[in-house]
Formats: sequence, C-alpha cells, structure tokens
Amino acid sequence: MFLGRVIGEVWATRKVADLEGHRLLVVEALDAGDDPAAPMVTPVVAADPMGAGVGEEVLVAFGKAARVACGGDGDYALEAAVVGIVDSHQLAKEGSS
Amino acid sequence: MFLGRVIGEVWATRKVADLEGHRLLVVEALDAGDDPAAPMVTPVVAADPMGAGVGEEVLVAFGKAARVACGGDGDYALEAAVVGIVDSHQLAKEGSS
Amino acid sequence: MFLGRVIGEVWATRKVADLEGHRLLVVEALDAGDDPAAPMVTPVVAADPMGAGVGEEVLVAFGKAARVACGGDGDYALEAAVVGIVDSHQLAKEGSS
Amino acid sequence: MFLGRVIGEVWATRKVADLEGHRLLVVEALDAGDDPAAPMVTPVVAADPMGAGVGEEVLVAFGKAARVACGGDGDYALEAAVVGIVDSHQLAKEGSS
Amino acid sequence: MFLGRVIGEVWATRKVADLEGHRLLVVEALDAGDDPAAPMVTPVVAADPMGAGVGEEVLVAFGKAARVACGGDGDYALEAAVVGIVDSHQLAKEGSS
Repeated sequence: MFLGRVIGEVWATRKVADLEGHRLLVVEALDAGDDPAAPMVTPVVAADPMGAGVGEEVLVAFGKAARVACGGDGDYALEAAVVGIVDSHQLAKEGSS
Repeated sequence: MFLGRVIGEVWATRKVADLEGHRLLVVEALDAGDDPAAPMVTPVVAADPMGAGVGEEVLVAFGKAARVACGGDGDYALEAAVVGIVDSHQLAKEGSS
Repeated sequence: MFLGRVIGEVWATRKVADLEGHRLLVVEALDAGDDPAAPMVTPVVAADPMGAGVGEEVLVAFGKAARVACGGDGDYALEAAVVGIVDSHQLAKEGSS
Repeated sequence: MFLGRVIGEVWATRKVADLEGHRLLVVEALDAGDDPAAPMVTPVVAADPMGAGVGEEVLVAFGKAARVACGGDGDYALEAAVVGIVDSHQLAKEGSS
Repeated sequence: MFLGRVIGEVWATRKVADLEGHRLLVVEALDAGDDPAAPMVTPVVAADPMGAGVGEEVLVAFGKAARVACGGDGDYALEAAVVGIVDSHQLAKEGSS
C-alpha cells in the first residue's frame, strides 16, 4: 500500500464491464520519507469505493486487496483501489521517536 | 492500473497458444502528475480486448485483472491488458479542487 | 521482502472494514547494498501485526504473504505487512565473505 | 508483459526441482518509447519454453502467466517466462498514427 | 526472477511463525545488461532453502514461486526466495551471438 494524494479523475465510456460504476481516480504517491527525496513515480489509476475527493490523502492497495475492497469476488478486472481516506499521518526522523 | 498512450504494436508468430488472437499493443505511461516530472518508465506490452488505436489514451491493468478482462478463466499466459479507452481525464493541482 | 525502517504512522477513520484494528506504519526501505547507492524509493504503508515501533528496523512482505501474516484467509484488502522486527543484519562486501 | 532482448543465459546446477529442464535466459527490456529515454532497468531472468536465441526480441510475462506458459499448474517455482518471439514491432510517434 | 549476489543476512527473533527456520539473505541485483548501467535498486530480503553463502550468485523468485520453493502450500507469509545458486552466466553483446 502507499500513501498518495488524489490529483484527478479519468473517464472511459469504452471499458470492460467490471469497471462500470467505479470512479477512477488518478493518485500520486506522496514522498513521506527522509531526504534525499525519492524520484517521482508515474501516478496510479485506482478505483474508488470510498468517495475520496480531489486533493485528499488516500491509502491505495494493489492486486487482490483492491478487488476485495471493491466488493469483487477476486475475478475482477481491476487491480488498484482506494482503501482508506487519511485523517493524518505522523512522521519521525530516524532516532527521534 | 495506469494511464497510458498506445505507441505501437508487436507481432509474434511464435508465441504461447493463449496469446493467439489478441492484438499486442505497446503502451507508454503518461505522467499525469505534478512537477517535477517522474522519470520515464519502459513501455508495457498489453493484450487489447477493447480495440484501441495507436495514439489513443488507455487504461492498462496487470495480473489477474488483465486475464479477467481478456475473458480468461485465470489460467492464462498474459498479465497486462487494456481495460478501458479514455475519453478524458481531468487533473487538479494540489489544493485547487 | 525488504529491509526497512519504520518512519511514521497513518490514521484513517474512513477505510475498508478489513483494515480496522491494524496499525498502519510508514516504512522506508534501507539501502543495504554496495556503493553506488540505490535511488530512494517512495515509502510503503504496511499493516503491523508485530507491534513495531517508530525507528525500528523491520522486514516487510507484500501480497498474499502480507495477508497471511495478518491472519486473513487470503481475501483481505491489504497487501503489505510487517513480518519481522530485525535484531541485526550483517553485510559483507563482495568477495570479503 | 514487456518487450526485451535476450542478452545471455544462466546455468545453475543447484536449483529447486521445478526449474529443471528449463533454459534460463537473461532478458533486457527494450525502451521502445519516445524521448526522453527511460532509465535502464536491471535484466530479468526468464524461463524459456519457446526456444529463443541470444539476440532475439522476445515478449516476457510475469507471475501466473509465466507458470501457465511453462506448462505448470500454477504451483511452480518460477515467475518470469518468454511467451513469444517477436517478428517485428511498429512504433508511431504521438499523433502520427 | 533476477540474478543477484548475496551480500548479507538478517536476523529477527520477533517474526511471523512462517518465517521460523528460514535463513533470510540480503540479495543485491546484478546488472548484467549492456551499457549504460541500470540504476542500482534496493536489495531484496529472500528466504533461502538452497544454502547459499554470502558472495554467491543466486537466482531469486518472487510471490507464489517463492512460497512453492520453500515448501509452503501457497499460504505462507513470505514472497521472495533463492531458487537457484548460479554456476555461471554468459552474456553476449547485441548482435554478437
């Protein structure tokens, strides 16, 4: 799972049936780590069963976890989903805990 | 899943039987994120059950999701597929939603 | 699996039911390798069934392994978990073993 | 799946039984994309049920897809395999299709 | 699968029960490819059912393949394992095969 921010939404009229009825959000990973910063990574498109809004911090899961989160039985044509909307996160520098 | 653009096609006469009858598209990830840009990533080869054309924006899924999208029963020798053809996407800068 | 350090924690009130009752830790990969250093990678959010504290070195597993570690039956909406708290690690330079 | 070139072979006398009888090829991803080039990625070692030769362009699949391609029933200790030998590929610049 | 070198070992007293009895090796990917070199990647921690020593070249597999290699039935809290100890590998420059 990763911590990300919703930066947009994707619309596709022509899609596999399993994707009908799911909002598809574009989520960018947040680099919560110490310096030096990690290189940016290409955003993920995640189905959203949680109702997240653009700008919110979310938790995204992949693979079977995403299908379970969307209510599928495992045979589902998606593999990334929002599994939580983040209230807050706290980070500590090494040794400062 | 990721947002990509179809940049080409691959032909292979000698291939495992499960790949017969599927177009194999070369898809490059789009960097929809904020600056700084993410480094480019090596393109993915995805089976295409949707009829996407070169130049179109598509949504690509991996693993079991791809096999389900291609109508397989899960025992299928492919693990990336086009699951949607994108009409549009909208991106918002952080805080501008 | 990777060797990481716990650098923080995430709280989410709105989350899929499967995540209830799990602490969600932010874990940064340690670069244990030879020079030159590997580029930093974006931290992972992992469920923690082990009781790791911020600053501790942990072992993180992905996918089904993570679900098994958290006591799930495989149909579980998470895919990263702490599977061990590291006592120590020893590294040898190439050829010095 | 990705488009790669066979750049070598690996021999291992001591290996898990499931790998017996499979050639193990070293495959490097081809960067078929637009400029700027993607960073190189570490080569993959793939089982080869297709009889690919060094220097040939191949299609490599991961995970269950690779096990299916090698004739396994899914309980197989490998997760990358050559699934096709590429005759040709055609790439179009964005907008030139 | 990837070609790596064992660079160390990890000890964890507090770990999920499935990891008991497995040595946990730190393995760094070898860049067997052509120039330019690939960026280094963060080392992997792999269970070792093969008895590899520090400094040896090994083949590492992920996911279900790793669990099968370790004798698990698939419900096993690990996802990376040494599946072979490399005798030798041969690499050819493009076109020199």
